[in-house]
Amino acid sequence: MEQLRMDVNVAKDFVRRAFIGYGFPEEDSAIAADVLTTADLYGIQSHGIHRLMRYADAVREGSIDPKAEVKTVFETPLSAVWDAYRTLGQPVAYRGMETAIRKAKEHGFGVVTVRGSNHYGIAGYYTRMALKNDLIGVCMTNTEAIAIPTHGKKAMLGTNPIAVAMPADPIDFWYDAATTVVPRGKLEVYNKAEKPLPSGWAADENGHDCSDSSRVLKNIIAKAGGGIFPLGGFSEETGSHKGYGLGVVVEMMTAVMSGGTTSPHVTHSGNADTSFTFMALDYGMFGDKKEIRARMSTLLEELRESPKADGQERIYTHGEKEMENAARLAREGIPVNEKTIREMREIASELGIEANF
Amino acid sequence: MEQLRMDVNVAKDFVRRAFIGYGFPEEDSAIAADVLTTADLYGIQSHGIHRLMRYADAVREGSIDPKAEVKTVFETPLSAVWDAYRTLGQPVAYRGMETAIRKAKEHGFGVVTVRGSNHYGIAGYYTRMALKNDLIGVCMTNTEAIAIPTHGKKAMLGTNPIAVAMPADPIDFWYDAATTVVPRGKLEVYNKAEKPLPSGWAADENGHDCSDSSRVLKNIIAKAGGGIFPLGGFSEETGSHKGYGLGVVVEMMTAVMSGGTTSPHVTHSGNADTSFTFMALDYGMFGDKKEIRARMSTLLEELRESPKADGQERIYTHGEKEMENAARLAREGIPVNEKTIREMREIASELGIEANF
Repeated sequence: MEQLRMDVNVAKDFVRRAFIGYGFPEEDSAIAADVLTTADLYGIQSHGIHRLMRYADAVREGSIDPKAEVKTVFETPLSAVWDAYRTLGQPVAYRGMETAIRKAKEHGFGVVTVRGSNHYGIAGYYTRMALKNDLIGVCMTNTEAIAIPTHGKKAMLGTNPIAVAMPADPIDFWYDAATTVVPRGKLEVYNKAEKPLPSGWAADENGHDCSDSSRVLKNIIAKAGGGIFPLGGFSEETGSHKGYGLGVVVEMMTAVMSGGTTSPHVTHSGNADTSFTFMALDYGMFGDKKEIRARMSTLLEELRESPKADGQERIYTHGEKEMENAARLAREGIPVNEKTIREMREIASELGIEANF
Repeated sequence: MEQLRMDVNVAKDFVRRAFIGYGFPEEDSAIAADVLTTADLYGIQSHGIHRLMRYADAVREGSIDPKAEVKTVFETPLSAVWDAYRTLGQPVAYRGMETAIRKAKEHGFGVVTVRGSNHYGIAGYYTRMALKNDLIGVCMTNTEAIAIPTHGKKAMLGTNPIAVAMPADPIDFWYDAATTVVPRGKLEVYNKAEKPLPSGWAADENGHDCSDSSRVLKNIIAKAGGGIFPLGGFSEETGSHKGYGLGVVVEMMTAVMSGGTTSPHVTHSGNADTSFTFMALDYGMFGDKKEIRARMSTLLEELRESPKADGQERIYTHGEKEMENAARLAREGIPVNEKTIREMREIASELGIEANF
């Protein structure tokens, strides 16, 4: 599909006005627009503005309620549990991390868990909020079940990503990864290209390693068994049980702690049964922050500068690629495919807002 | 090598008296003996009493000082940083988790980082202390560099395990795994059996996937390049960068926070330059503990009961195998190989203590 370019601020302004048009408060709309366009800027197009139509559909179907109010279920000085009551994922996630940051600034550590929400976009957006406050940020979400446990054949856990960020110079450490080998989007890319899936990515309905992306995707949609393997692939030999366990940790820190729906019972992504957790940690609790930050910077630089494998030119640290993308795409414009442009024009005409692109 | 059986209490008593014989305080000796024999009970023989001779050697070489005292470098209500000054790893780790637990009971969360220590045995021993206090426990350690970063060819990170535990019924969740595909011990097992290494385990000196365990091990010892791949194997296609990033997270939470030696600079395992972190979290900060614990128990049961892949009979949750081993080996005796028995007799005669086996 052809990729066009769009100025990121033009995109952000349109998305913000669209959310307002769907009935979301102004501030919520601005947050959601920033989260979506930031994903595009970082080069994570799968989580970017092309999802706008999905949110519009969710509002129409009633699985997202623009007027819902988040309620605090439980609170201590270090923690809070919120019920999002079908609000949009991004604003509640933004405020969840904001609250975790406030608690961390006051006490050293803060954690907020949220239930009853929707997909919040890229987890790393919220850990970056901690970075801006010179704190360590951690963020997790469960999702609809798509990963099979080691020795299993039924999807029981979500892609359950973990994001961790810590400030460093000149490049922050910014880790954001699923606890599965790949996300579902990767299977779709291979399916479109009619390429066989690499070994260790996905299981058929019998739990066997399967290279047929079409079969795996059909099974996932029909909930007919099979799914994606945990990080570490399909056998204990390559560490499958390790990724599986990390997926359980995410489930524990999100749905179990918040009283939300665990992945095996999440009915459909974006259907108000997703749970999150946001943590902020003031690393000043371990001593002089300048010294600690310098040590982290040195570690990351040593990793980048370490000898390269034959045929490789660079060793990246986590977040480096995204920062390079952001600098480049802010100049060049973010890639937007034709289908997304068409959908944006439809939304503009539906809502009676200006298509400023 | 032939495996004999030894009553776990006989083994524990001997190891305790041996540590006393080497000049360690009585309480420290009892802790170290319990950590080592617990590893054997859990079926993790690689971290069990067969290591006793290594600790004896480290005392003789001066890299472990039985009379050293741990000093507090920095402290806040939620946190502490300790310098272990070459003490034995197990007692300082035990007290580190004890302090994290005390802080968590008072404030909801506690974290202790330790630098300048030695190998502390199985990480999961310390998270189990949190379980006994109805808390979530997290424990990490860095190690001598053995893992190569994605696209690299020089070992820059340790096996850097992460342990996470949460109470559940009837089986606690008890995760304890390296952030590498395998630990070094696995390469040694394949080397002894003269079996080729599976793809995705280890790199040669050029950073290429390598099935020759002897070549990889020689390179590791000579620090000639190569090493073990991060969890996720050798390419981004199978998620190598994900395990690599988790290894960095461990390095950050151990050496970077405590001011200890980062893995690339750790000279030799057991040479007083290892760093740890211990965290305890009172999950009562998220609401009614009975309800939360019940939700975790349900999640784990659903995982165990979920449909099995063709040819598989069980899906395990993390810690289940170890608890079954512990029940069985407490009755049958722990496996001890002949070489370890010989070494224990040598130690008995060196120290003039009774060989009670």
